[in-house]
This record gives sequence, C-alpha cells and structure tokens, in this order.
Amino acid sequence: MRPLSTLTRYLPILSWARLYDRDTFGADMLAAVIVTIMLIPQSLAYALLAGLPPEVGLYASILPLVAYAIFGTSRVLAVGPVAVVSLMTAAVVGNLDLPTVEAYIAAAVALAFVSGLILTVMGILRLGFLANFLSHPVIAGFITASGILIAFSQLKHIFGISAHGHSLPDLLISLASHLPEANLITLTLGALTLGFLFWTRKGLKPLLLRIGLTPTLAEIATKAGPVAAVAATTLAVWGLDLHLQGVAIVGTVPTGLPPIGLPAFTPDLWSQLFMSALLISVIGFVESVSVAQTLAAKTRQRIDPNQELIGLGASNIASAVSGGYPVTGGFARSVVNFDAGAKTPAAGAFTAIGIAGAALFLTPLLFFLPKATLAATIIVAVLSLVDLSILRHAWGYSKVDFAAVATTIALTLGLGVEVGVSAGVLLSIALHLYKSSRPHVAEVGLVPDTQHFRNVLRHKVQTAPHLVTLRIDESLFFANARFLEDYVYDRVVCDEPLSDVVLMCSAVNEIDLSALESIEAINTRLAEMGIRLHLSEVKGPVMDRLRCSHFLDALSGEVYLAQYDAWTALAPVR
Amino acid sequence: MRPLSTLTRYLPILSWARLYDRDTFGADMLAAVIVTIMLIPQSLAYALLAGLPPEVGLYASILPLVAYAIFGTSRVLAVGPVAVVSLMTAAVVGNLDLPTVEAYIAAAVALAFVSGLILTVMGILRLGFLANFLSHPVIAGFITASGILIAFSQLKHIFGISAHGHSLPDLLISLASHLPEANLITLTLGALTLGFLFWTRKGLKPLLLRIGLTPTLAEIATKAGPVAAVAATTLAVWGLDLHLQGVAIVGTVPTGLPPIGLPAFTPDLWSQLFMSALLISVIGFVESVSVAQTLAAKTRQRIDPNQELIGLGASNIASAVSGGYPVTGGFARSVVNFDAGAKTPAAGAFTAIGIAGAALFLTPLLFFLPKATLAATIIVAVLSLVDLSILRHAWGYSKVDFAAVATTIALTLGLGVEVGVSAGVLLSIALHLYKSSRPHVAEVGLVPDTQHFRNVLRHKVQTAPHLVTLRIDESLFFANARFLEDYVYDRVVCDEPLSDVVLMCSAVNEIDLSALESIEAINTRLAEMGIRLHLSEVKGPVMDRLRCSHFLDALSGEVYLAQYDAWTALAPVR
Repeated sequence: MRPLSTLTRYLPILSWARLYDRDTFGADMLAAVIVTIMLIPQSLAYALLAGLPPEVGLYASILPLVAYAIFGTSRVLAVGPVAVVSLMTAAVVGNLDLPTVEAYIAAAVALAFVSGLILTVMGILRLGFLANFLSHPVIAGFITASGILIAFSQLKHIFGISAHGHSLPDLLISLASHLPEANLITLTLGALTLGFLFWTRKGLKPLLLRIGLTPTLAEIATKAGPVAAVAATTLAVWGLDLHLQGVAIVGTVPTGLPPIGLPAFTPDLWSQLFMSALLISVIGFVESVSVAQTLAAKTRQRIDPNQELIGLGASNIASAVSGGYPVTGGFARSVVNFDAGAKTPAAGAFTAIGIAGAALFLTPLLFFLPKATLAATIIVAVLSLVDLSILRHAWGYSKVDFAAVATTIALTLGLGVEVGVSAGVLLSIALHLYKSSRPHVAEVGLVPDTQHFRNVLRHKVQTAPHLVTLRIDESLFFANARFLEDYVYDRVVCDEPLSDVVLMCSAVNEIDLSALESIEAINTRLAEMGIRLHLSEVKGPVMDRLRCSHFLDALSGEVYLAQYDAWTALAPVR
Repeated sequence: MRPLSTLTRYLPILSWARLYDRDTFGADMLAAVIVTIMLIPQSLAYALLAGLPPEVGLYASILPLVAYAIFGTSRVLAVGPVAVVSLMTAAVVGNLDLPTVEAYIAAAVALAFVSGLILTVMGILRLGFLANFLSHPVIAGFITASGILIAFSQLKHIFGISAHGHSLPDLLISLASHLPEANLITLTLGALTLGFLFWTRKGLKPLLLRIGLTPTLAEIATKAGPVAAVAATTLAVWGLDLHLQGVAIVGTVPTGLPPIGLPAFTPDLWSQLFMSALLISVIGFVESVSVAQTLAAKTRQRIDPNQELIGLGASNIASAVSGGYPVTGGFARSVVNFDAGAKTPAAGAFTAIGIAGAALFLTPLLFFLPKATLAATIIVAVLSLVDLSILRHAWGYSKVDFAAVATTIALTLGLGVEVGVSAGVLLSIALHLYKSSRPHVAEVGLVPDTQHFRNVLRHKVQTAPHLVTLRIDESLFFANARFLEDYVYDRVVCDEPLSDVVLMCSAVNEIDLSALESIEAINTRLAEMGIRLHLSEVKGPVMDRLRCSHFLDALSGEVYLAQYDAWTALAPVR
C-alpha cells in the first residue's frame, strides 16, 4: 500500500482519474468551454501587461494547465497568467534593460523556469509553511497596491500614448508628460470598452435575468463580455481602418502551437533572476493556495500546500518549456470554473485544448484587435482587487497590523512591487520580534472563591504582601531574556520586603538557553537578597527541557503544578 | 528637577563627581596604576592584531577612557582596544585592499568614527534592545571561535613568518606554506614568552602567596607578567642584537600625544563601512554591557543599556578624533579594575593619564620590543575566551540552541567573523520564527478535584465526549494562523460528533489581524458543521483587541473568564 499512497501524494491525478466517468466528463467540458472563453482575452491582455507579445500569454495557458491537472491537488483551480504575477514579471524583466524583444521573452521564460524549479524544490522539501510569513495584511496591501499600479500602467493604452515606470510616481509623471500626444480615436474606443465592460459586470446580468434567461446562461453571457468587446472593437478597427489613424493594434500573432524545448542554459541570468523568482513564486503560491483552499472548503476537500507547490512548480516549468512566462492559480477564473461545475482537474486540461485551438485557428483574427481593448479588460479585472478598506479595518484592530499594510501599500506604489512586498514581510517579522522582545508581564492575584488568578490591575483579586506572582505573557527566549531580568529586579527592589516571587508560566511555551541563563541569574540574585524564586504552571514540554539542565537543583523555591497550589503553600506563610 | 535629572541621565558624571572625595581618589588612583600596567602591552598587542602600528593602540587608550568616564554608567568598566573588536577591525579593513599603511589607518579611524555615530544614535533612539537579538549561544559561540581565530592569527609572529587570512582554513594554509621560512630565534623567544605568560597565569600567584606576599601584591605581580615579558624580551633583543638575526621588532613608535582632529570627510568610505561598523558596534556593545552588568550586580548598581550605548559611542568618536580605532569595554581589564578597588569612572580617566605618559615618555623604549612577545600576550589572553563546553551544554539543553552555536562557530572559523556572527543571528531568528510557526497545541482535560486543566496525554484528567478543549501554546500571529486552522479542522473531522470546541487562550498573548481572520474562518466553518466555538481564559490585552473587531458578535459560542467556567457550562450538556 505504501508505494501507491506515496505515488498518489505526488501524482494526485491517480486518485481521481480512476473514478472518471461520463457525468464528470460532461461537467468538466462545460466548465472548460466557459473558462476558455474567459481565458483567451485574459491571456492576451496579461501578456501585454507583462510587456510580452500576445502569443506568449496563449502559450502560458496551454501546457501549464495540463501540468497542474497532473500534479495539483485542487479540483477546480484554474492556472494561467494572472495580473499580479504579470506585473511582477514586467518589473523584474524590465529592470534588466534588455536590448531586444527576443532577449526580453527569453528572460521571461527563464523567470518561469527558475520559479518552477524553486516551487518544486520547496514542495519536495515541504517548505510550504514559509508562505505563512506573508501575513494577511501584507498580502491584502500588496494586492491592492498592485491593482492600482496595474490600472495606471494600462492607462497609456487607453490614451494611445507611451509611458513607462514601475512605481506610481514614475507612471504618473510619464503619463502626464505624454498626455498631449493622446490619440482621440483610441481614447474613444478605450473609454467605450471600459464603460461596456463595467456595465457587463454590474448591469448585464440583472437585465438578462429580467428578460427571462436562466441564471447559468446569464452568467455565461456576462463572462463573455470581454470576448464580445474584443470581437466588436476588432471589427470596428478592421471596418473603419482605425489602425491607419493611430489606433495601436496587436498585429501579427504567430499561428500554431508553442515550440517545445528546454529554455536556453543561462546560469548567469538564472542566478540574477533568483531572488525575484523566489518572490514571484511565493506570492503566486500564496494567492493560488488561498483561492484553492477557499474553494476546497466549499466541497469539503483538502488542499495539501506542499503538493500545491509541486503542482505550481510543474506548471511553471511546463510554461517555460513551451515558451510561456510565470503562471499561477487565478482567482476570478477559478471561481468561474467552480461555479460552472468543474469536477476534476481534467477541466483544466480541456481548457488547455481550447486555448491550443485558439492558438492554431484564431490568431489571424487578432490582427486588428486594439491594444486599448485589452487594457480595458485588465483595468476592469484588477479594479476588483483594489480594496482600501483593509487600511481602516487594520487601523481599528491593531496599529501594528496597520503599519504593515500601510508600509506595503506605500512602498509598492512608491517604489514598485518587489520593494513593497519585501518591505512588508520584513516589517511584519521585525514588528513581531519587537513585540515579543518586550512581553506583557502581569502581576496576578487570586479571584475570590475560585482557583483562578488574574491581573491585579484589571480585576478585584486577593494578594499577599510578602508574595509577588508575575505572569509572563510570552515564551522566554533570547530576545526577551534580558527584559525579564530587568523587570524582576525592578519589581523586587521598589517594594516592601518580599520573601517569595512566583513566576507563573502558563503562557511560557518555551525557555531557550539564553532565557534559562537569565532565570538562573534571577534565581541567584534573588537568593542573595533572601527571596525565594518559585515557578508555577510550567507546561510539560518546558518542564522536560528544564529537567535536562541543572536549574531545578539550584532553584531556591519550588515548582508548583498549579498557581493555586503555590498560593496555598506560600500565601499564609507570615 | 526635570532638566537636572535628564542631564544626569545623559551625563552620569554629574551624579558621582559631586560626591568625589579623597578616599575615592586614592582607591581610583591605585586601580588606575594597575590597569595602566596591564593596558600598555595590551594596547600595543591589540593594535598589532588589528594590523595597525602600535601607537594607534595607545591612542585608542587615552581619550576614549575620558569620554567613557563622562558618559558611561558603569563605575568600573575599563574601555579600550579589545581582542574581538581588533580582530573584526582587521577583517573589515583588510578586506578593503588598501594600498598604503596610511590609508589602512585612516580606514580604521573611519570605522571607529562610524561605529561611534551608530552607537550614539542607537542610544539616543533607545535601541539598546536590539542587542537582545544576539542570543547567548550565538555570542558564546562567536567569542570562542574568535579566540581560536585570533590565537592562530598570531602564530605567524611566534614563528617569525608572514601569513594572512581571515578564516581558519586560509590561516592554516598560509601558515603551513610559510612554515619553512620560520626564524628559530624568534620561535625560541616566542615559545619562552608563551611559557612564561602561561606560568604567571597559573603558577605565579600560588608561589608568591606561599613566600608570604599579601594577596593584593601577588595579584598585582601576576598582572604585571606581560609587562615583565615585554621588558625582558626587549632587553634581550637590545643586548644580543637579535633584530639583526631576523627577529621582527616594533621599531620606531612616534613619541607624543595623538594628534586631535576630525577624521577626513569620506562619505563613500563611511557608507562602505556602515554594515561592518554596525556589526562591530553591536558586538562591542553586547560584550561591554554584559561585563558592566555582571560587575554592577556585585555592588547593587544599575547599568542603563541605552546610556551605555551613548558612553561607548562617545568613546569611539573620541578614539576616532585622536587617531585611534574601535574600542569597547574589555572583560579582563574591567575585572582587574573592579578587584583593584576602583570606585568611580575617574579611575578610567587616571588610566588615560598613565597611557598618555607612556605615549610621551616610553615609546623610545619600545623600539626593540619583539612582535613575538606581543603575539604571545595576545594568545595567552584570548585562549581564556575559548570555551567549547558551550557546545555540550547547548546540545544537552536544546538542539535548536545547539544548531545556533555550532553554526556560529563553524561559520566564524570557516568564513570569518562577519559572516559567522551574522549567520548566527539570522539563524537564531529564523529558528525562533520556525518554532513559533508550528506551535504546540495540547488537548486538555480537568485534573480531578481541582479547577485546573492539563494535557490529556500527560495527566489523568476528565474529558467529555462532545467537548474538545484545545490549549494553544503560542501567541497567534501571521506565521501560525494557518497552522491553527489546519489543526482544528483535522481535530474536528476525525472524531465522534462534537457539539463544542473551546480554545483555551491562557498562553495566547496576542492575536494579530491574520490570526483573527483565521479564527473567524474557523468559527464560520465549525458553525456550518453544527459545532459551537468558545474561547476561555482570554487575557485582558487580547480581549481589548477582540472587542475592537466584529468577531465577538459573530462567535457562535461564549467567551469564558476561566476554563473551569467553560467546563461547568459545557461538559454536562448531553
């Protein structure tokens, strides 16, 4: 049994492919058709956002989906190009200052390859927990700021001007300086498309329902909004020869399936891209796994985060070997897949067939597609990511969390995506360490008629004059060991004569070697002052650890199982 | 009163100078004489270790002592050149590959200046707590490895060969390849000096006591061992013309007080040195403050770590403006100062006068001083720093602490001081974060006949089949929020039908926004499964925070003050 279950763990396809039947096939096919319709314009648009030719977006939507179907654990996650990862790709590859489009594409492919290797290795080493260090506020702030950056970065296509910049100030200055060159026809086309897309999001579905469509059909029609916009504006450009009046179009998109082959062996470029690839990998993984978990919860399925790393790693490697750029699980797309009834990852494989068909047969039709349409698609999609309410929410709950969100948003907008999210993560960790280096310590007393002890400052409790009980509200480790020493010394000198100090350790989950040395110092120093030191409510794992040291022999007082035992033994002494 | 007390805080001299009297003066003078005798060879030797001319060591032992007397809070700390900081200076300045001795000195002076500014600013901003992130195991490992490195780096002077390297492998290879060039006269001189110095450490004092000297005199005579070695070997070289036979000597040492003046304005160099200066500052500060605290504890005095930063910062700036290199409080020297009866920092100022006298009158006598003697002084001094028992100690107590020590020692020896200590600090933080990302969670039950709850796996306790109580032994924050979700879901699915889950929060000292969202998710998901979620023993500060959110309205169960209340209310339900 063992070899099979290990195999199933690393190849989740084995667990569902055996049970595949006609019903599941029908459900998956329907979902695949809907997702394909949604994904064609998205993959073209996100390639544009990443600064890549449109076919690269299509290539990134074929093999990666097949790879995820084999290795991924989510039944409904739809993998492919997504907005935030595309923006990060643009920032990373743009910073390399490459001379040619070919070099730019090669770097994006290399980024996918390195990212795929990183994800796979992290998965094999079971390092999924690392993603936890991206806290919710940091992710929320980062996604919101990225959405704003993306929307502004696409405005140039709506105005028909050129503008550059990976931060909001750069973008705004660049946009403002080129604004006089705006093309009015492009602007009209872009504005109309934007208006239409917003309307299909908000107004179309209720309208369709009112005129009698079934909810499913109404939903499909709504999701087809971008495809309709693509078709209509392409026809408009073709029919009215708008491209001759300065409307930027997609132009020739190579027809055919992507060329398959390992990316060029460029270790220098790979090592140069390593840190960026790590950041993109972790962010892509966090986004993807939270989508997968949200959807899995609805059907009581389980997501294995470490296997997800392998699934996404395989997808990115598949993307790189087929000329694509970094991919991950997309939120909107996966929700559509789920709502459309996808039952297994086979739906993703069928979607891949659909996109392959588009690459084979539809690319000539894309010649007259205006870039402004794709930009409008992106803007409408990403504005749903922007949610500044996280700032208010965090402010109300905790100033520390607020600091993390605000810094992430400010630095992402001001200095770009890589700096923003790195600073957010480092700040979260630094603030956490700072807080735990200055733990809350409460002096506690007995709540009358119970065996329960609470803070003397917050509750009416009994105390004894010769006895001080300090409850330390933090694990004791190197960062706060000295703090505890100072606190205890300060507490025992400025009071009436004490005979006993109890450290109540109910919240102490660990005592490391630094902290052990500090407690030993406290014990010695208090003994010199004629004060006994006791411990109470020491947890099992901590007690096991203390038994490995000589501390318990040297301790001047006792270790009590419960604080109430310490109170009973010590309070009545004088 | 306020302005005066603020002034006294920043100028501790004001608090003791007013009370200065003849007795204190006498005690301080005696201590100063002993420390001066000890410091003259030490300052020459440590300058050699730092790769600097001997007079730089003297210069670093004059003004810095005066500055510390004004700004420092320890009554007995003896500031000046020390072994570890000298080694780090050699590593940092050596890496700059400077063409001339003048440029090398200028860089060491700049290092002292930047380090002084960093320490002062940290003191003013009250960042002394940052030093806590150097855990005891990391410091212990670093000091031990530095001692080994220093001893090996000085062997070249004992053998009379040239050898270079800032890591143990480099040093050993370099020593081995130059060994055939060893000068036998130098080696004899060096070996004799080493033997003599070891004997004065171990054998001289008991001998002197046996022949009837008072303990104080015996102590002074022992401490004068290095001075005797310096005098004897200098005379030997002079009398026997050993320098003509290849014994390396100190040579011309400029006579006179150090030139006073701001160091050259070289912002490029300063920013290049910044990270190294930060590392040297923090390590010097940690060493110094722990010496100061150990000695202060013996006389019930208090050390203010933030004012210590200012005191050491002033000392380093004073060193830089008088042509010296980075200084800090030395362990052996401070203990001697304390044992010799120093009562106030004035003893340090008197020592400075002694060293100034040496710089004015003794330097011609140093011409024939063999470098091998200084090297022997260093080797004997630093071998007392080497204590590999920390490895065994840490192994017995905790594998995590052992990993930190072992890594610090291995990397310091293998890759040099900067890499070693940085890796130790980062590893300590990473291991701490890793541990807190996978907290201990215990299922608890009632200890019979008490109101106390303990782990069901470790104690005989009462439980109820429909009720699970989980005690989370860690604050809940971004790094472990998802872990808790997974843990609770796993626990509730694989068991007989539950109606209530209690999270016992006695060890939860904080719930950040990420964790709040996870608990909200747990609450929602359990509610869908028909299970109520309760909290118990939520601490005051955490409860305050929860009241700021909407969580308490959404909570399906109750918040109980004590776990016993939760038990009483929920256990008998069915």
